Amino acid sequence: MNATLHGRQSSDPAGVTLVGGGPGAWDLITVRGMHALQEADVILTDHLGPTAELERLCDTAAKKVIDVSKLPYGRQVTQEKTNELIVSYARAGKRVVRLKGGDPFVFGRGFEELTVCREAGIPCEVVPGVTSAVSVPAAAGVPATQRGLVHSFTVVSGHLPPEHPKSLVDWSALARVGGTVAVIMGVRHAAAIATALLAGGLSAETPAAVIQEGTTAGQRAFRCTLATLGETMRRERIAAPAVYVIGEVAGL
Amino acid sequence: MNATLHGRQSSDPAGVTLVGGGPGAWDLITVRGMHALQEADVILTDHLGPTAELERLCDTAAKKVIDVSKLPYGRQVTQEKTNELIVSYARAGKRVVRLKGGDPFVFGRGFEELTVCREAGIPCEVVPGVTSAVSVPAAAGVPATQRGLVHSFTVVSGHLPPEHPKSLVDWSALARVGGTVAVIMGVRHAAAIATALLAGGLSAETPAAVIQEGTTAGQRAFRCTLATLGETMRRERIAAPAVYVIGEVAGL
Repeated sequence: MNATLHGRQSSDPAGVTLVGGGPGAWDLITVRGMHALQEADVILTDHLGPTAELERLCDTAAKKVIDVSKLPYGRQVTQEKTNELIVSYARAGKRVVRLKGGDPFVFGRGFEELTVCREAGIPCEVVPGVTSAVSVPAAAGVPATQRGLVHSFTVVSGHLPPEHPKSLVDWSALARVGGTVAVIMGVRHAAAIATALLAGGLSAETPAAVIQEGTTAGQRAFRCTLATLGETMRRERIAAPAVYVIGEVAGL
Repeated sequence: MNATLHGRQSSDPAGVTLVGGGPGAWDLITVRGMHALQEADVILTDHLGPTAELERLCDTAAKKVIDVSKLPYGRQVTQEKTNELIVSYARAGKRVVRLKGGDPFVFGRGFEELTVCREAGIPCEVVPGVTSAVSVPAAAGVPATQRGLVHSFTVVSGHLPPEHPKSLVDWSALARVGGTVAVIMGVRHAAAIATALLAGGLSAETPAAVIQEGTTAGQRAFRCTLATLGETMRRERIAAPAVYVIGEVAGL
């Protein structure tokens, strides 16, 4: 999976490239990702990443661009349908790019799509992306780590509340690790997540930061504390996509 | 910090851009990062990221390129000296890029350099990068997360052993979070870190993967278990830069 794409020969079989599009700004995709877009016949897009400005990265008029967004609580294209489209275009000899927000392997279902391609016998490459969990806080001046202050950071999906039977996160243990916590896909459950971290022993005064639509023209950022996180997000009507960061780095 | 660089006007003041160069392959830098390199007068490089193939990204002959590597256990340029160079070139009116491996805010001392610029009154922007902690495992086929299996991942610096008085990581708590653990800068202390995670309750059979020089032509990757991690790294003579991943994703 570490072969480069830009060196692809015309005799190479068509295949699928899973591209991490980065956090939102069009030019925060990688150079390799841009080259993959430029060589694609078909691009399957998310609503995240550089989709809104795709024409700055490639000649979209010369390509088939299909929106397979899975909007939270909105219109859904099922993963099965997306998988079908990937496989059918690839089998038809098209060079397919599946463009995803952030990084394909960070809560992106990238490994699922890679597995689908492998099982179908279709060559598939993965181009990593700038993950929103780190770059969105950075765009608001919040580093993931700082020497002498924090030696770890945890990126966690907040799509399930802490008490949910399918939750795979021990929030109490996470509160004791000692590092930065960055929550993505956690707008709806922010208050419950803050409560769980407080119950696990994190101080109510732990600095926090909330960033909506980070790295884009619509970016909005707010500083608060762990105790006021839920209230802040309600008051400011924070909506997805948003990231919140809990830890000393949010107070720098 | 979310202003774009490519739109810089010639009347803009010269400034400093901290650029995340990504994990190693030259084309895993962002498009924005490449543009910053192309516009730079002075580039201060690490030994990581795309430094070895910098001429594929910009016309290096037209720029002053200075190596300020801090090689592990090798020749050192102090951070103070690097800070001095950044400030003095910027004050001389040069457009300075500080090119770093991975992401500037992930154990990259990026925030320290940003603070130095701010205190000196020098405009400083940060261009995020693809972090090695996610992209290096990805290059070996190991995703950071997988739906239904893991809802979090923790990136941790292994530069201090778990029992070190300056350690800021509760490895026992980390063993109980339930997510993927990716250790960077942890070659020397791998066996001690594995022991701490085992003592924290992680199973000896937890899958692990070790990747040296990921995404480059020199990439080497090995699968093992948490119990055999230290032994595997010794036997294969793993050297920095390397990442190891512990968790179910390493067994996919």
